Amino acid sequence: MAMAEYSAEVSPVPGADRGSPLALICGGGSVPYAVADAVLRTGRPVFLLAIRHWADPAAVARYPHAWVAIGQLGRFLRLAREAGCRDLVCVGTLTRPAFRDLRLDWTTVRMLPRIYRLFRGGDDHLLSGVGRLFEEMGFRLLGAHEVAPEILAPSGTLGRFVPSPRDLDDAALGLALVEAMGPFDVGQGVIVANRRVLAVEAAEGTDAMLMRLADLRQSGRVALEPGIGVLVKAPKPQQERRMDLPTIGPATVEAAARAGLAGIVVRAGEVIVAEAEAAAAAADRLGLFVAGIPEEPDANR
Amino acid sequence: MAMAEYSAEVSPVPGADRGSPLALICGGGSVPYAVADAVLRTGRPVFLLAIRHWADPAAVARYPHAWVAIGQLGRFLRLAREAGCRDLVCVGTLTRPAFRDLRLDWTTVRMLPRIYRLFRGGDDHLLSGVGRLFEEMGFRLLGAHEVAPEILAPSGTLGRFVPSPRDLDDAALGLALVEAMGPFDVGQGVIVANRRVLAVEAAEGTDAMLMRLADLRQSGRVALEPGIGVLVKAPKPQQERRMDLPTIGPATVEAAARAGLAGIVVRAGEVIVAEAEAAAAAADRLGLFVAGIPEEPDANR
Repeated sequence: MAMAEYSAEVSPVPGADRGSPLALICGGGSVPYAVADAVLRTGRPVFLLAIRHWADPAAVARYPHAWVAIGQLGRFLRLAREAGCRDLVCVGTLTRPAFRDLRLDWTTVRMLPRIYRLFRGGDDHLLSGVGRLFEEMGFRLLGAHEVAPEILAPSGTLGRFVPSPRDLDDAALGLALVEAMGPFDVGQGVIVANRRVLAVEAAEGTDAMLMRLADLRQSGRVALEPGIGVLVKAPKPQQERRMDLPTIGPATVEAAARAGLAGIVVRAGEVIVAEAEAAAAAADRLGLFVAGIPEEPDANR
Repeated sequence: MAMAEYSAEVSPVPGADRGSPLALICGGGSVPYAVADAVLRTGRPVFLLAIRHWADPAAVARYPHAWVAIGQLGRFLRLAREAGCRDLVCVGTLTRPAFRDLRLDWTTVRMLPRIYRLFRGGDDHLLSGVGRLFEEMGFRLLGAHEVAPEILAPSGTLGRFVPSPRDLDDAALGLALVEAMGPFDVGQGVIVANRRVLAVEAAEGTDAMLMRLADLRQSGRVALEPGIGVLVKAPKPQQERRMDLPTIGPATVEAAARAGLAGIVVRAGEVIVAEAEAAAAAADRLGLFVAGIPEEPDANR
């Protein structure tokens, strides 16, 4: 059984079909509600499908919603249809579940061989495959950034500090490394200091990578003056951006400060900034820069 | 001041100049003494320049030796010349020092601007630059593997367990990733399980990377049955192999077992196996494979 190819003809047009509520599959963190509020401001209703153990019950309660568990595709399908949804956005944090931990309902069981194959590969392989499943069920998959572009990092700096030439040099090396690792579906973050790659993010996530560097500096294993080094976050080149964009927020800024970094560089327009005002305030308070750098056309090193 | 180019004409011929003692600059671990013993077996004398705080005093005492601190290039030069050495091998573990922690003698101080620049970049940038310094001082730099080829991982398996087709598939992905990261002078190790890259080694080193995966599995953050996943170690493509080859040993096997891996794959002939018999015994006891895979010509994925 070959996996259905993603049809390039299904080109999502943000803002179309505005009468129906937008279904928001919500993971953890604050971004789902920033997206929901942004959509509501455009006059479109939302319907939250909150993922059990991940979405914040108090926040979810402020919107029309229902709860679903991971693996309950049939229940999800029924709830979204009953709510009259046709467009779908997946947003928020979620740790990759174990295949054996999925709470399978009947619809999911019928798709099992396919889902099993999705688990053989990196996160983007899994997420883009789940996105295709939703589309085959008749939903139109939109990216959070398409319905709420205001959540994306703008070009330029977020607070009052700016990167030095050395920081920009380190950032360029980091962005090129993320690009080179693209085909391998690894992480979306690296740390570079003084042209040396100190850390590469994979399954541990950005926060754990920053904590690791804080420990390495503390122990003297990485012997480098504080205030040197840049966290770089950017999507993988081939990544299904509608399912997953890299995200930073105030906690990322605080962790970067603990790791002794000079600041954070993200790809402008391709990385979500959760609670941008709080992130800028944290950066100003801790003396870090947060900068969005646009992709240059043909910026191969 | 441009950095002198490495002269391609200086092609080290192992075994030449056999009358003079071979100078061994010794870092930590057991490999320096395996190399020293192998050289002695060929009938050539050795002279150990043991790096203070890194080399093992009890082991060093078994050979003609002197102690040096990192940064004492002048003292090193004098001692090696007094011992009549002309050929030089650097071997053993060493954590990258902080530039500010170097104990500089006068010879080193004169080279300071150059040494400072070596610290701006990855480990290979630093080590290959130090290698060039030794060559300009009139030594011939040889690789540990050139004077003691028996320390290298052979083609095939080390113990009695063999990789499964899935393991070989994961290993191929890992080897290709190390290759792709080559220009960025990152680490020499990655962990791949089920075609998913779980960890990439940078400044933390292989043991810390394995410990991280053990923690991620323990906490459920990486939800994967035990016995799946491969540690891959291979040199960076452009790496100065005479200064630094990736190394595994019994402790690596034990850490890989704690991380729930199926085994270890290294590039045959390009990775050092410390205490090969003990490593094979540990692999057999813990149910892991340790396999050397030769590089295929033109093996681009």
